[in-house]
Amino acid sequence: LHQAFFESDTKVLNIFMAGTGLIGSTLLKQIQEQRNYLQQEYNIDFRIIGLANSRKMLFKENGIAIDNWREELENSPTPSDIHSFVKQMNEINLTNSVFVDNSASAAVANTYDEILRASISIVTPNKIANSGSYEQYIRNRRLAKRHGVVMLYETNVGAGLPVISTLRDLINSGDKIIRIEAVLSGTLSYIFNTFDGSVPFSEVVKDAKQKGYTEPDPREDLSCKDVGRKILILARECGYSMEFEDITINGFLPQPCLDAPTVDEFFNVLATYDGHFEQMRRHAAEKGEKLRCIARFEGGKATISLDSVGQEHPFASLSGSDNIIAFTTARYPERPMVVKGSGAGAEVTAAGVFADLIRIANYLS
Amino acid sequence: LHQAFFESDTKVLNIFMAGTGLIGSTLLKQIQEQRNYLQQEYNIDFRIIGLANSRKMLFKENGIAIDNWREELENSPTPSDIHSFVKQMNEINLTNSVFVDNSASAAVANTYDEILRASISIVTPNKIANSGSYEQYIRNRRLAKRHGVVMLYETNVGAGLPVISTLRDLINSGDKIIRIEAVLSGTLSYIFNTFDGSVPFSEVVKDAKQKGYTEPDPREDLSCKDVGRKILILARECGYSMEFEDITINGFLPQPCLDAPTVDEFFNVLATYDGHFEQMRRHAAEKGEKLRCIARFEGGKATISLDSVGQEHPFASLSGSDNIIAFTTARYPERPMVVKGSGAGAEVTAAGVFADLIRIANYLS
Repeated sequence: LHQAFFESDTKVLNIFMAGTGLIGSTLLKQIQEQRNYLQQEYNIDFRIIGLANSRKMLFKENGIAIDNWREELENSPTPSDIHSFVKQMNEINLTNSVFVDNSASAAVANTYDEILRASISIVTPNKIANSGSYEQYIRNRRLAKRHGVVMLYETNVGAGLPVISTLRDLINSGDKIIRIEAVLSGTLSYIFNTFDGSVPFSEVVKDAKQKGYTEPDPREDLSCKDVGRKILILARECGYSMEFEDITINGFLPQPCLDAPTVDEFFNVLATYDGHFEQMRRHAAEKGEKLRCIARFEGGKATISLDSVGQEHPFASLSGSDNIIAFTTARYPERPMVVKGSGAGAEVTAAGVFADLIRIANYLS
Repeated sequence: LHQAFFESDTKVLNIFMAGTGLIGSTLLKQIQEQRNYLQQEYNIDFRIIGLANSRKMLFKENGIAIDNWREELENSPTPSDIHSFVKQMNEINLTNSVFVDNSASAAVANTYDEILRASISIVTPNKIANSGSYEQYIRNRRLAKRHGVVMLYETNVGAGLPVISTLRDLINSGDKIIRIEAVLSGTLSYIFNTFDGSVPFSEVVKDAKQKGYTEPDPREDLSCKDVGRKILILARECGYSMEFEDITINGFLPQPCLDAPTVDEFFNVLATYDGHFEQMRRHAAEKGEKLRCIARFEGGKATISLDSVGQEHPFASLSGSDNIIAFTTARYPERPMVVKGSGAGAEVTAAGVFADLIRIANYLS
């Protein structure tokens, strides 16, 4: 067989990376640390050919020195522009190219079409393309298929936890998804796992913000918008042509909190509702229950609500900022398949992106 | 890029399958049901080129009719012989060939060397090659690498649960495994989850056997040998050159049970120990604890023992025949990453084998 003739050949994955913030820089550090191991174990070599952040961009067809990328990028004379980055990547035209989008930018997500059309695979933790219009979601999928490349985004849900790949394996092998039940926000998980009555609710939220667990405006998390994007992606992976507006979000944040014009004012307003949240908590505690923000997908309908669950419920024992995802399926009908663990943070997210890259590299011929 | 020229091409995976028992026939049924879906979604086509059970074997270079394989195989004039099966597969010499071993046979596992040397990938639920000598384990791995093919065996541990792929993703991306704690036997899980004092221990085991949850000789399960093979594979995936003899199995089955010459006599002897097991159970229950057979791997040492765990332990709430695997790592240091769900049965095992096949097909160029 013809592969045997190349048996000593190293398989090179050519990486073009946009975004060198917390996730991007952590990923570069992880690649640097694992390079020798992956070469030895799998004959694969990662080369960083293009690198861009919001200020500068840089290309080196022989590879950017990964232990010196920060300085090389800083010293690049080329100002950053995502369109010329993609254009130049396509022109360099290396086989086995992968575009890694570590940004949270819609402008970058909007270039995916062009990238896939150039037969370049995409790996990204950026949720924007998958949680925008269904039309964009399905277009990307079809382009990848038509051009023989892949688009991997395991970290869109649960960071480094095996969620999307597991769901895909179930569906591809013919299992039928009956129900998905999940805690999908590390932020909300932390807040409700910590809220035990010893400290007012608004202080728990403030503490979460100070620890860097929330978005700059915590209402992004508390409004369940981020959870909505994640359950939307899972629903779409199940084959449903659903839009964000189709999700029923039973929000728990009182309207005046949402209306507050600044984050500081939001915290002032939230403090006036500390009694309201404490009452909810105590009401649950009296029944031996706990508050958990749960996303559900069943029978084509996605809902998110703040529920009170008993000790026997598997989500009651959640702690820290853990996520949990339970798949009830035709083949796991009585007791779901469950994946649990930290669902946020740069290390685990970068590791999930890295694992997607290794998956592509491993199957290069 | 050159892939673009083949954009409408279907990627064909040529399958050679040994073993058409419960797992093999379920896998063939699943492939038949999913064929159109996979063609539509991913442009991949599964062809069954060779098929063998313990009696007959059959080859058709254009593909065996998957809705009629049983009759076609039965009507084949060729008696089964694994060596001539492998020889013929190698001679047919189709690109993108995969050998699927659905047997539990050492004779089949011993052909892997020859198959990998012919640059043919292997997918198997058969644990024998991976849990035999370390020399065989590492030789298969190196042959696969040298010949540019893969050997996938997700179903060796936890059936269809994402265990080995998850562990590999962690290790490949540079995470350090601190500890693995797991209930790895669906049989022992069922027995100890069911043993609540209402029925004697020997009756619980008998019931498990009647339900088909145990090996024909339940001592294969109760001796923790099967669990030993699974924790051994996980330890090896972590990079340890460990042998089965290196595992500390703190067996819970009294010696006279192991010495009984037949299965019937074993049950008679086991019944004389019902008081012993009930005492263990009651002793645990009085402390609010439950008996669980737990496999652990930490600091290069693998141990298996029947432990008594408190309600706060994540394994206490296990039910049915569920497996649970908890990975404590450098990146999941305080709360482990956990995978839980049914770890046995033909449907979930075949689905896991199928998912491995789809993984290979998806990355064909």
